[in-house]
Amino acid sequence: MKITCSKDKLHHAVQIVQKAVSAKATFLLLSGIYLSAENNKLQLQATDYEIGISCTIDAQVDIPGKIVLSGRYFQELVKRLPGETVELASSEKDHTIKISAGSSQFNLLSLPAEEFPVLQSLFHKTNSINSFIVKDNILRDIIKRTTFACATEESRPIFTGALLELTNNDVRMVATNTHRLALKRSTIENTTNSALKIVIPSKVLNELAKLLTSELPVDVSICWEKSKVAFSFDDVYLESRLIEGQYPEYNRVIPPEFGTVSTINTALFMDAVERVSLMAKDGEYNVIKFQFNSNEVIITSNNPDVGKAYETIPVNTEGTEIAIAFNAKYVTDILKNIGTNELQFSLNTPLSPARVKPKNDETYTYIITPVRTS
Amino acid sequence: MKITCSKDKLHHAVQIVQKAVSAKATFLLLSGIYLSAENNKLQLQATDYEIGISCTIDAQVDIPGKIVLSGRYFQELVKRLPGETVELASSEKDHTIKISAGSSQFNLLSLPAEEFPVLQSLFHKTNSINSFIVKDNILRDIIKRTTFACATEESRPIFTGALLELTNNDVRMVATNTHRLALKRSTIENTTNSALKIVIPSKVLNELAKLLTSELPVDVSICWEKSKVAFSFDDVYLESRLIEGQYPEYNRVIPPEFGTVSTINTALFMDAVERVSLMAKDGEYNVIKFQFNSNEVIITSNNPDVGKAYETIPVNTEGTEIAIAFNAKYVTDILKNIGTNELQFSLNTPLSPARVKPKNDETYTYIITPVRTS
Repeated sequence: MKITCSKDKLHHAVQIVQKAVSAKATFLLLSGIYLSAENNKLQLQATDYEIGISCTIDAQVDIPGKIVLSGRYFQELVKRLPGETVELASSEKDHTIKISAGSSQFNLLSLPAEEFPVLQSLFHKTNSINSFIVKDNILRDIIKRTTFACATEESRPIFTGALLELTNNDVRMVATNTHRLALKRSTIENTTNSALKIVIPSKVLNELAKLLTSELPVDVSICWEKSKVAFSFDDVYLESRLIEGQYPEYNRVIPPEFGTVSTINTALFMDAVERVSLMAKDGEYNVIKFQFNSNEVIITSNNPDVGKAYETIPVNTEGTEIAIAFNAKYVTDILKNIGTNELQFSLNTPLSPARVKPKNDETYTYIITPVRTS
Repeated sequence: MKITCSKDKLHHAVQIVQKAVSAKATFLLLSGIYLSAENNKLQLQATDYEIGISCTIDAQVDIPGKIVLSGRYFQELVKRLPGETVELASSEKDHTIKISAGSSQFNLLSLPAEEFPVLQSLFHKTNSINSFIVKDNILRDIIKRTTFACATEESRPIFTGALLELTNNDVRMVATNTHRLALKRSTIENTTNSALKIVIPSKVLNELAKLLTSELPVDVSICWEKSKVAFSFDDVYLESRLIEGQYPEYNRVIPPEFGTVSTINTALFMDAVERVSLMAKDGEYNVIKFQFNSNEVIITSNNPDVGKAYETIPVNTEGTEIAIAFNAKYVTDILKNIGTNELQFSLNTPLSPARVKPKNDETYTYIITPVRTS
């Protein structure tokens, strides 16, 4: 292989695929980045079997070829190279790649490219019924507003992923750790006959969201088969394994109506909850108490080893006054992600699930289970 | 105690003394912040016996008194309080302090103030012969340009500190870990009869440098006794224990003349050394090689497990051409701190100490011992 390309483009591509390089690879090749050059294109790939990413850039290809380089060293090096262009040339003789830029010259040891688990694009394998198109800003939004609610411990793998569901032109993402649940709905432009219900690891979705950063909306093509889903946009292809198992019937968790609905300023509420949580967070369950009255909510905590906290926030409550307790983290998590100035906190009884949603937005729902206190 | 004060001033004072709160206190009181209110002043203090800091702010003192609060909770809380003023009131009854701001109200448990190891200002105890005054920007500069060269491991405590030396109006700071040495000289305005040679923990000096951030130069008063040194500026008093022992005769380490003097662009040199170091840094000694020729320096490294690096940088060398090897970190450390566009690298033989200094500045000297290579 012998190619010349823009340093900035190469750096861009390395940064993107780097997210799929296995940090603690049991299989040495998975710590590598695969480079394939032909037809004046250079494709970079990395995979750890859970997530696989490729990125394709323009290059002047003098001799086509395929190589694998240590992901860590290649990334660190490309980031620091001088000048505007980089030349990569492989040497069969000593299994090294010569990387030249300006007056810098590096010979990196290469790994056996023929053994690399090369990604096979799902878009070539599946038929069009198993695909749809969504704008990147919509996809980023439904990911960011839900995945924080996933479980982090692996004891029940299904809850470490988020459900992606498509019915006609209604697309939604759902995440839960069984104590709280986030649901965000949106719509896609072209109605499709496809129906979809898959569970994607939240780690992969978070990496995907970080790549969806275009200033102007671009199309993201999504396609899937039994055990994989793939996303294609710009010069990027990203695929993920799916999490197997039955996702719970989330609609049954959402109460149809509420006896108390309190409208609250998000920023005031957030600040007060965070202060009260200071006293509670070293306790075993990080529990804080809320007394929803007609014109105020009183937020309190009591940690015998530290002290007591007491806050009041003006609210507008319709319905029954109620005292209830929650894990403070589950409350602050939604306040950080809700993205509106005013929210509605809806409740029934001290032991039944409550709902938090933006004031004028029916597409975003957060359900939170209260904590029983003595 | 009952006082009212500005939230911003209280936050400022807490942030300053927080640096002396013991993170892993074996003695519970050292994890606390001591507050003392009288004569419309509130003084905060913290100490871990190595470093002690106090900060004094204006306050409306209704009832004078002394209390100790958990440093961690008090700091987190003050940072987040709403509004512009804070009221602190102690309750003898239940050993709590009520902290009120806006509609927030907290009751923090207090610790026994009478047992706190209150700082006794050295300025009241020592005579004027043991003191001098230096501008804060000068003190910050001599700290920042030297302490990075201190030893980090504790096996020889004297090298974990930096030497502060005063002779007439010449003030200097010296730091070494025996493999490299940094020396920075400056002058003070008022010649003093005091002579000083003390070794201060580099950790304390780094905290002190962070506090010396005034935009207009302010005076820092320094005074000392046998085992302590104290710095006073603005509303801050900071004292440090001294490290006992004989500091080495650093002047003997500085070669009087050099056979090779190379003038180099700092930024180009820094970038090249960092790239070459990429290949070397996982090796046992992080060794990179330099070939100083008349018009260029060639920088190389070779790590059999990773690959090879080769860089050339244009230089202007006077004297003998020479090949020499250094620990890459010891070279990059000075390049990060030298603060000038051009530097002079001066050498004698491949096994004798070299010097790095700014091109047109005789007040800053960095000595680095080469590494023997096969």
